[in-house]
This record gives sequence, C-alpha cells and structure tokens, in this order.
Amino acid sequence: MIATTQQNMTTELDLGSTDGPPRNWKGIGIAMVVILAVMSLVILSVILLTPESHLLLRAHLTMEDLESEEFKVHDPRVAWLNNEVVLRTREGHVLSFSLNNNLTTTLLDNSSLDLTTTKFQVSADSRFILLAYNIRPVFSQSFTASYAIYNVANDLLEFNPPEKEKAALQYASWGPQGSQLAYVFDGDIYYKPSVASKPLRLTNADQQQHVVNGLSDWTYEEMLLTYDAHWWSTDGARLAYLTINNSATPVMEIPHFLGGLYPSSVVFPYPKAGSSIPSVSLFVVNLYGPAHTLEMIPPDSFRADSYISMVTWISSTRLAVRWLNRVQNHSVLCVCEATTGACSEQDVPLFSADGSMFYTILPAKQGARGEFHHIAGLSSQQPAFPAVPPRFLTSGSWDIISLCALDEKAGKYFLSTEESRQSRHLYVDLDGVFQRRCITCNLIDGCSYFQAEFSPNRTHFTLRCLPGVPKVTVHSTKNPSYVVLEDNSPLSKALEDKRLPETLFRTLPADNHLHLKISLPQGYEANLHPLLLIDGVPGHQSVTEEFSLDWPQVLSGTHNVALAWVDGRSTVSRGQKTTAVNPHKLGSLRVKDYLGVVRLLMQLPYIDDRRIVLYGKAYGGYLTLKMLASTDKLFQCTVAAAPITDFRLYGAAFSERYLGLPTKEEHAYSTASVLEEVNKLKDENFLILHATADRVHFQHSAELLSRLVKVEANYSLQLYPDEGHTLRDPRSFQHFQRTVVNYLQSCLKHSVFLDPIEDNEE
Amino acid sequence: MIATTQQNMTTELDLGSTDGPPRNWKGIGIAMVVILAVMSLVILSVILLTPESHLLLRAHLTMEDLESEEFKVHDPRVAWLNNEVVLRTREGHVLSFSLNNNLTTTLLDNSSLDLTTTKFQVSADSRFILLAYNIRPVFSQSFTASYAIYNVANDLLEFNPPEKEKAALQYASWGPQGSQLAYVFDGDIYYKPSVASKPLRLTNADQQQHVVNGLSDWTYEEMLLTYDAHWWSTDGARLAYLTINNSATPVMEIPHFLGGLYPSSVVFPYPKAGSSIPSVSLFVVNLYGPAHTLEMIPPDSFRADSYISMVTWISSTRLAVRWLNRVQNHSVLCVCEATTGACSEQDVPLFSADGSMFYTILPAKQGARGEFHHIAGLSSQQPAFPAVPPRFLTSGSWDIISLCALDEKAGKYFLSTEESRQSRHLYVDLDGVFQRRCITCNLIDGCSYFQAEFSPNRTHFTLRCLPGVPKVTVHSTKNPSYVVLEDNSPLSKALEDKRLPETLFRTLPADNHLHLKISLPQGYEANLHPLLLIDGVPGHQSVTEEFSLDWPQVLSGTHNVALAWVDGRSTVSRGQKTTAVNPHKLGSLRVKDYLGVVRLLMQLPYIDDRRIVLYGKAYGGYLTLKMLASTDKLFQCTVAAAPITDFRLYGAAFSERYLGLPTKEEHAYSTASVLEEVNKLKDENFLILHATADRVHFQHSAELLSRLVKVEANYSLQLYPDEGHTLRDPRSFQHFQRTVVNYLQSCLKHSVFLDPIEDNEE
Repeated sequence: MIATTQQNMTTELDLGSTDGPPRNWKGIGIAMVVILAVMSLVILSVILLTPESHLLLRAHLTMEDLESEEFKVHDPRVAWLNNEVVLRTREGHVLSFSLNNNLTTTLLDNSSLDLTTTKFQVSADSRFILLAYNIRPVFSQSFTASYAIYNVANDLLEFNPPEKEKAALQYASWGPQGSQLAYVFDGDIYYKPSVASKPLRLTNADQQQHVVNGLSDWTYEEMLLTYDAHWWSTDGARLAYLTINNSATPVMEIPHFLGGLYPSSVVFPYPKAGSSIPSVSLFVVNLYGPAHTLEMIPPDSFRADSYISMVTWISSTRLAVRWLNRVQNHSVLCVCEATTGACSEQDVPLFSADGSMFYTILPAKQGARGEFHHIAGLSSQQPAFPAVPPRFLTSGSWDIISLCALDEKAGKYFLSTEESRQSRHLYVDLDGVFQRRCITCNLIDGCSYFQAEFSPNRTHFTLRCLPGVPKVTVHSTKNPSYVVLEDNSPLSKALEDKRLPETLFRTLPADNHLHLKISLPQGYEANLHPLLLIDGVPGHQSVTEEFSLDWPQVLSGTHNVALAWVDGRSTVSRGQKTTAVNPHKLGSLRVKDYLGVVRLLMQLPYIDDRRIVLYGKAYGGYLTLKMLASTDKLFQCTVAAAPITDFRLYGAAFSERYLGLPTKEEHAYSTASVLEEVNKLKDENFLILHATADRVHFQHSAELLSRLVKVEANYSLQLYPDEGHTLRDPRSFQHFQRTVVNYLQSCLKHSVFLDPIEDNEE
Repeated sequence: MIATTQQNMTTELDLGSTDGPPRNWKGIGIAMVVILAVMSLVILSVILLTPESHLLLRAHLTMEDLESEEFKVHDPRVAWLNNEVVLRTREGHVLSFSLNNNLTTTLLDNSSLDLTTTKFQVSADSRFILLAYNIRPVFSQSFTASYAIYNVANDLLEFNPPEKEKAALQYASWGPQGSQLAYVFDGDIYYKPSVASKPLRLTNADQQQHVVNGLSDWTYEEMLLTYDAHWWSTDGARLAYLTINNSATPVMEIPHFLGGLYPSSVVFPYPKAGSSIPSVSLFVVNLYGPAHTLEMIPPDSFRADSYISMVTWISSTRLAVRWLNRVQNHSVLCVCEATTGACSEQDVPLFSADGSMFYTILPAKQGARGEFHHIAGLSSQQPAFPAVPPRFLTSGSWDIISLCALDEKAGKYFLSTEESRQSRHLYVDLDGVFQRRCITCNLIDGCSYFQAEFSPNRTHFTLRCLPGVPKVTVHSTKNPSYVVLEDNSPLSKALEDKRLPETLFRTLPADNHLHLKISLPQGYEANLHPLLLIDGVPGHQSVTEEFSLDWPQVLSGTHNVALAWVDGRSTVSRGQKTTAVNPHKLGSLRVKDYLGVVRLLMQLPYIDDRRIVLYGKAYGGYLTLKMLASTDKLFQCTVAAAPITDFRLYGAAFSERYLGLPTKEEHAYSTASVLEEVNKLKDENFLILHATADRVHFQHSAELLSRLVKVEANYSLQLYPDEGHTLRDPRSFQHFQRTVVNYLQSCLKHSVFLDPIEDNEE
C-alpha cells in the first residue's frame, strides 16, 4: 500500500513538472482560499452542532474552581426600607435603591468599616443603620458582635452597653417604630426608645445561674432555629421575650487546644438525653410608659419540663404561643393576653390581627394521599376565640411553604410546591376559592425555586431565585417588569465553560413515596458510573432545585460519579400521612428506605453496582454508619463527618423527640446506637472526620474510635482541632472538602483496579 | 536435542524389551531402595548444610506472634530476702527459694488474689509480704493501688489508711528494719513502726494547695525517674522526704471523653517552659522516739526556682543531696547533717559510710578520647569533709554503668561497658589498681547484657540476662555454679522456628563518635533492603544488646527491612567530651548527626536508597518531623508518635534543660519548634499517632494538625481516645503497632511500584 501511494505521488509530481501552458496562479489561490474557508465552516458547524463534541470543549469543575473568587455566590442581603431596598454590593458598599425614582444612594462605602463580614439593619424610620461587625459565632445560630449605629445624614456612632467600652454585645435590633432599639448584653435585655435616649435595663439575669433573657441558649437554638428569642408587637409598644434558666442543666466542657500555653475549655449548659432541660418562661414587657413586666402563664400540664416552640403577636395585645411537652409528642397552642398574662388553650391554631379574618397554614386531608399543608382562613370575634372549623383557600396534593404577604386588600401571596415538589413558586390568591395565579412561573429564565420578601406596604417584593446561579430581583405587584439587584454574572460566566451534571427528580413508586434527586454526568447513558449517595437530616428536604455547587459536583465531573439525594420519611413538603410512623423507628426506617433506594439505583443500566459510596454529616453521618453496619461490603467506601454515634450523648431536644426519655432498660437508645455495632463495621472501609469543638461533640467519635481500635477496624481519620461543625476557617473547610473528595476518588480508583478480578469471580 | 533424546530413550526401551536372562527383581528392588535412601540423605544434608535453604524452612515473625502468649517475656520480679529470693512464677504464685538448702516454699498461691497484676515486697524481717493490687497508673512512674499485708504464717490483712475502708493508697513500702512501714495517702506520709502498730501521721499537706509529701509530682517523676521521693536511713531510724509544693504552678487539664454522659477532665499541676515550677524542700523525720522533723537548708543560691535531683543517705545521720538550678546548667552536691539541717557544699561528690573509704562513679579524663565514668575511691575524716582528690580504681575508654556491691571485704562489684559499648558485664575489682575480673563474660550462652542485684549479705547475686531471650539466674560469689530462676523457655522454643534479623554494632569513624545498631534480614547481602531508622531520646542509649522483639523485627522479617538505631550526642555510656555541646543546639545537631548516618547507610550496597523510612516517639517523634522538614523527599515516609512539636508546650524541666528559659524574643524555642516548619512538611508523607491523654499532650499534635490543615499537607492520622503515652489497654497497643506496621508496609510497597518510573528519570 505504502509503496503504491508513493508511486502515485511520484507520478503527479512528474506531471506537474512537465512543460505546459502557464498556470493561472491567481485562480488556484482563490480556489484554495474558498476550499479552506468551506472546510473551516464545515468543521466549525460540526463542532457547534454535535453536543458531545461541544461538551468536550468544556472543562470539568475542579476543587480549585470552588475555592476561587469567581465561583463564590454573592448575597446582597437585601433589606426593605419602605419603598427602598438596602443592599450590600460585591465590593462591600451599602447602597439604597429607590423604587420610586430608580435612584441609587450610597449609605456606607466600604472605607467606613470592613463591611465584608458585617450585617446591617435599617431602623424603621430609615434614619439609622445598625451595623454588626467583629461577628464571632457561638453555636449554630448564636454569635457575639460589636455594634455601631450609622446616622445616614451624619457619622458613625459606636454603640456600647452602659458603663462599658468596646464591649461585644450578644444581640441588637431595631423595633418596628422610629428608631427604637433592643439589645442583649450579659444575658439581660436593654431598651432604647430612640437612638438618642438612654438605655433601660428590662431584666436582671443571674449569670452565675446560667439565665439568659431574650436570646436562645443551646437548646432553643435547636428549638426555635433563631438566636433571638424576643418579639416586638407590631406597634412597638410591647416586647415579648423568653427567659431561659439553665441552673439545673448539666454543663458540657469543650476542650480548646490551640493558641495558648495551656489549653482552655468552653463550658456551657447542654442537656443530654435524659438530663435536666432548661426551664423556660415567656414574659411581656410594656415599653411605653413605665416598664411593666408580666409572665404569660402556661397551661398546668406544661408548667415544668416543657418547651416553648413558637411565639407570635396576633394583635397589639395578644400573642399566640405553642407549648410542647418534653418528649415532643403533645403540644398546645394558646392565645395569651399580654395585659393580664392569661393564656387560653386553642383547639386549632388561630391568628388574629384586629378581629376580622386571619390566615395560617394548616394540614388538610387530600383524599387517600394523606394530609398536605394549605392556607386556612379563620374568623374570630374579639373577646373570645371559639373553635370555628377553618375554611381552606387552597387544596391539592402539594404544600404551601410559606405565606409571604397576607392582606385582604393587596392579595394573599404564598410560596408553594404546586408546580413540582422540588420547586418553590410565588402565587397570588385570586380571592375565589381554590383559584390562584403563579407569578414566578416562567418569569425568570432557569428559575423555579424562589424566596420572596415583600416591602412594608406590599407594593413591591424581592425575589431570590436559587436554582442555577442565584439572582436577586425587585418586582412590583402591579407591573411585570423588574430590576435585577444581583445576578452573580461572574459566576454565570465562569460556569459557561464548565461541564456540569444533569439533575433529574424522581418519586419512587413504592409505598413510602420516597423522593429522589439524581445528578448525572452529561452523556451518562454511554458509560458505567459510580454512585455517591448523600445522606440528609430528618425534617430537612434535600431534594430541591436549590442551587448547589460543591465537592459532589466536582467529584461527578472529574470521576464520572452519579450523585443521589433522598428525602426519606418525615421530611417537610410531603403528605403528612406517611410521617405518622413511630418516631422511635425513624432511624431504622430511614436506613431501610435508603438501602431500598440504593438497590433500585444499582439496577440502572448506567450505574456501576460495584462502586457505590456514601457521604453523610451529623445525623447523615449516623445514617451512613448504620447503613454500613446493616450491609456487607455493599458500599465501596463511606464518609461520616461529625457523626452522631449514640443519641444518649446528643441534645435532649433532638434525641428525645425520636427516642423518648432514656429508660433504665434503654432498648431504644441501645438499638439506635452505632457504638454497639462496631463489629459490623470492622471489615468496611470508611473515613471519619470530626472537628474537636463540633456541636456534635467529638465525644461521639471518641467513643466510636475507642471501640474501633479494639476490633482492629479499617478506617481513616481526620481531625480539625478547635473547629466547629461548619469549619469556619476557609482553609479548614477546603481541607475537609479535599480530604473527602480525595478519599472517595482513591477508593473509587481502587475499585476500578479490582474490576477484572471481580469479573472473573462472578 | 529433544528429538535426539527421545530416540535414545526409545532405543533403551527397545533394549529393555528384548528377551534375555530372567531379571533379579529382588536385587533391583534392593538397589532402588539403596539409591533412594542415598539420594534422600544427600538432599537432607544439602538442606541442613546450606544456611540459605535452612532459613527458608523458618517462618517470619508476625504481629500475631508478638501478641500471642508464648512470645511474652515473663519477669519473675525477683526480690532478695537475706539468703532467699522471692519471685513470682509464670502462673502467678509467689515462691521463696532458699539458697542455703535449695528448697522452694510457696508464700502465696495464685488463688489468694489475682496476682498477675500485682507487685509485692517482703519486709526486712521476712515475716510479711506487702501486696499492691488494683494498680492504676497515673503519669509515667506514679500510680495508686490497694494494699494488703500477708503474714507468711497466717492470713491476708487488708491495709487501709486510718478511718478509711477500701481506700487506694498512693504508695506503701517497708523500711529497712523489722516490719516498719511507710505509706502515702492524700499527699501525707504515715509511718507504722511495725505491722501491728497504729500509724503515725508524719506530715500535714494542704491538698487544695497541691502539696505532696514523700512522692514525686509530674515534674519530679521526670527529675528523679521514680515515684517515691522518700529515703530510709539504713538503720531505719530516720526518713528523708521531699515536700513538693505546686500552689503556684499552672494546672493542665486533660479532657477524658469516654464512658460518661458528659466528658470529664483530669487537672494537675504541670509547669510548662517559662511558667512557675514547684518549690521543693527536703525534710528528715526522726522515727525512733517522738517524731521530730527538720528541714535540710539548701545553699543560698538554690533557695528558690531550683530542683533537688538526688538524695542519698551516706551514714545514719548524714545525707548527700544534689541541688540543681532551674535551667540545669549548675548544680551543687551538699552533705547535710540530719540532726541539725545544716548542709555544706562539696567540690566533688563524696559518700561516707562510717568514716573510712567510700566509692562512687566520677568522670575521669582518658587522654584525648574525652572523659569516661570510672570508680573513684575517696577517703574522709569524720568531722569535716576536705576536698581530697579522688583515687580512681578503674580507667579506660569505657564507662562504669553502676556499682552493684561495694564492700571492702566482699569486693567491689560493678557493671561496665569494657567488653563493648553495647554490652553490660559484671566485674569484680581485684583490689590492685586497675585490676578486675569479668564474672559474666562467657558465663551464660548468648548473654552479654546483664543487670545484677546482690543479696543483703553480698554472698549471692541475681543476674538478669537481657539480650536474646531474657533469663534470671542466682549465683554465689564463691562458686561458679548457678540456679536458673526463669529462662523463658516457651519463648526460646517459639523463637527456634523464627527467622530473626542479625544485629551488628558499629561506631562511625566520624568526629562525633556516633554509635549504630543495625538489624539486617538474614542473607542480607543478596538483596536490596529498605531501611527503617528508629529515633531515640536524648540521655537514653538505644544502641545496646538489650533484648527486643517488637514490630520493627516483624517488619524486618516480612518486608526485608533493615533496622537502624543511632545514639547521638549526649547519650549515656560514652566519653563526656562530645557531650559538652551547646545544649541549645542539641536538636539541630542530632538532626544533622542522624541525617549523616542515613546518608552513610544509603551507600551500603544492600540498602535501597529510595526506600528509607523513619519512626520516632515523643522526642523521637520530634526528631523524625525535624528530619523530614530539613530534607526533600529523602524519606519514603515517616511515623511520628505523640511528637513534641513545640518545647514551649512541654514540661519546664525538660525544655529548659535544652533551650533555657523562654525569652521574649524566643529564638531558641521558635527555631526548635516543628510548628514553624509545616510548609516544609507539606509534600512529605507521614503518619501521626497520638493518644488524647498522652503525657506529651495531645495539644502538641493539635497545634501541628491545625497548621497542616492550612497548608493542605499530606498526612495520615490515628488517635487513641483517653489513652496515655504507653497505651495501657493491650488492644490499643496492638492497634498502634499494627497501624505503624501497615502504614510502613503500604508505603514501602507503593515505592516498589514507582521504581521503574524513578529509574527512567534518573
């Protein structure tokens, strides 16, 4: 063949060298140019039109990408200020944007203070900005901070507690009127009627007795999920607050190893399963005129060993309060009279503004599909609150997530899962029964998961669109046009060149209605992919369209890994019917559910059933270890970050909700514990990561490690000295992510290595 | 060739099948048997006479071997009792063996108490045995225990402090006369003139002020290397004791994670470099007649911020006491008069019995080779102690290790390194100057490292022979025959079938006289071997013939690894000249020395210079990390167990001896710290192991980990929750050993894998 070709070439060359008519060199040149141009076009169109080839031009997402500035999401922390929005720019300036005239004013520029790590709130009269800086997180919600007040017209004022200089406060916030202000210092609430006035001390806490007013302690951070535990009445005349007394609660000591010649400890009240929980009281203080404080009296059966799980003002003098018994299987909703302290028990939740119609979200039976959350309208007469059955404004096998603006005149705006379980769209009620209009459906390209915040007069709202690249926009209720406050365009641009996995949502047809989110590498049908299952937390929905760009997406891209998230029983946004399982069995049922999902996924033709890996953190870490213990080398390897290993060692509020009070026999706790199953973990391959100051105490892993050492188990370990659950030092966080990704990568690689051998065996 | 052979065979077969005279089948059979027998003999002799083949029949030592019962060394804990030895058998019985009539008597059988974890002491009048049981270790030397007294004729008596039942004591021991007894409880010394008498409280310590009498605190355990800090005068009439006051010493808090709902802490005084050290006083109490206590007055310059490093009775009323300044570069030896408390400073150490000749070990200049330790005889007059120059009884470039029996009549017995630096032989002085006879040389087969203990009347002695399998024997000073008390024959038998490495000793010819012990796999010349260097502790000699059967020997057998130990500068048993280096540079000099040794060893033809690994614990862990930081991928991988990472965080007595008091500039400490060099560790491959209750505090590794996380270093980690430096739970200890061996194995394997690539690059 080669010989033949050479001969032809020689022949042509010979022909070309013969004498003949002179060549049209120009014509040949033009022809060549045309041919080249056409060929380039063909190649270009092939590249552009073939999706596969096009994809090949894009790079995989890397860990370096995640850590780079352009891949960071900027949250402008928009706050409403009548018809203005106040926001923080990417550069750290604080601006106001007027919706009346579309003018932007700089309130603070980034030279005033280092505003990048700052929170700000605007006072009700728009004259002051309260700045929190030097923010130091304490537990999950709590922090201490230095505060300053910025007068928009004038200068910055330092803001300190009485007789202290440069002291950090526990909390400060504006009230709903003028520039009234409340703050908490050393466990006591102080009130300033205006920025200029002297502070009034409202409480007198005994710090030695671990009493705190107006703020959550460890337990209430988990119960209320907020740090502040005080509530202004809408007219600013009264302040309701919790007094949390931990004098009988045992204290937890967290060793801190770094920075000193001698290690130190942080000591704080922390009730573990079965030990004394904090006692809680609700007080209301009258702010106009002489301070006058009244306790809201709980129903007799909730006087001791109980929780307050909700406080809401329903009029200027009335509060709705939910008391919860210790094991959290019985609660009452009361309406309390702030002027007398008397509380009357209600059969159904009931909210009143001024004696007309009130709206709330209540579970409503939807035929055989179980109960879903819908908007209920309730009417009440002024003096008493008879238990009138609620009138539902919506129905269907989907849930209302939140009520955004509830005003009979302006309309009832709400977020719901009607379009799909994983979406969040804003709807407005059309005043006819069961009629509603979707405002955000097809409003912004690629957006189907929204958060909304309305302006005080409800003429405008901001939307945070979360799937894809997060965007923040301002809308008018009258007008479809909108203004983009932040579109994270650097991130959009950065992502254009990246090859990201495709996300699918599926509801499994089984009894238990499990919802599944799967991210698959592009072109997934053509290959065998390993699978990573990411374990969630009960009561938290993992299967949403919320934007996420994290190490699992990196692993998916670089190692062709399929990702899966499952919402098991007892997660929000699903029929209540299936949540009515025995909570004591929740752990084992979730393990069963998850294993069922894994077995289903393993049957997919593009999933490599020999390379299934797991990841979970905290409760998720617990689940991964339980799944590992109940299977035999089903999982290639597993990552458990800050795992709960024994619910006896975890917070009472969480543990007792699922497992009840520990009894002497303690079957529920023993069965649930991972510690009793170390023998089943012995031959599995797993990585444990734990921060030594984690809110899931390092004690959990210490107990596990000490047992694993005894059975000669095969595990890897990584520690983060003095770090907390969220690894606040970015370098620790990066290390954590890289450790997880490297571990999973090497474990998946290792498996590929073994494939031929495994094939022979099969 | 094949064809030809076949033809020949066919020919022979043809020949065989031709008709001929009938065969002598019997003769053929006999011939065959003879041929077979001869061939078997040849094969057998080849196997037996070829060392290589013979070796192949032996198995490698495994981790399972180390953990099995037959591989454990039994220490009979022999104690002298006039002309009897008391010992504990392998089964746990306590026996006495009389040297007068060779009769064995059972003092306690193993049914009385669980004697396997017990210590016993026999009273001076041989009538009682003091048993310590439930022994709970505290730091390195200290413990608490329950005690009982066993009357040889009668029963067991429980032995409790006054007004307490079943209380654990800190310490108890017999005095030198009758059944006199002292014990320490709650920091106070109690004295019982006899077993039957009531205890007398001798001290009155303030526990709140962290005062302890007669026992070492953390600092003195490191300083005296014993737990007891009290000394009986030989006539039993007086007791000298230290009072250690830690009221100004900062406390260390060690978190304990396991076993409780809430973790707990152990708090104890622990002076770190630069912080307050305990104040110490020496008292002598008169025991005969009314208790009368006198303080021994230190020289003025040692009144504060100093240590007492030695206390010895030199007559019934005089003590020799060594005071040491805080940074340990200046010490004085005093003779104190117990009856007055007056102490006089001495120029040279001086020990007196009753006014005649006394012997001690003093450094003596040996020409250009520096100073070596030799026996000095000193004469002294009764009333005063003039500084007469000592007369040396021995000389040579070797050291006297200890004086065993010093009696002008019976002879002067001592252990020395005369035969070789790594051996310990017992010699007797022949009373002529520089004349001596080796008693143990060639005495017991395979024994060249001895410990000796003489009977009270010095007619007999026990020998513990430590290299090879440890043996304990009893000898008479008159008679060469001896009795074997323990020969660890199960271990000898078990080792017969094992292939153990060969051990060589070398002194490197360089300036610094480094001593080296190398264990090489048998037949080492034929192969390339990886090298494991094991790092030691300053002041402790690693290069000895002491028996050792541990994970390095396993690694050597299973992975053909050569092992090396180095004695660097400032180890005992070598000329003092080279130890006179600036102690501040000790760390960096040792690193330099060790690296020099590594580079020399790498040139050996049978060492694979691409597979050099390191192991070190505590100070050794510090050295491994320093060596790693000062080289670039010279070491394949490294194991640092409980490493000291910053001498600021370590005990004052140790740190300040080498680095002085930390100053504001702190150059010495910063330079010495590993923490400042994490960037140089970034790309190295190492394993850190640390127990969380280690006496090298976990804080050292926590500080290191927190920095390693920040530079994204490549390391592995293993933790032992609530374990101490010696990992007392055998399962933790096994896990530790297996983790180290598995890590080094996989790292050495990994390297083999890379060899071809590295070859190409070279």
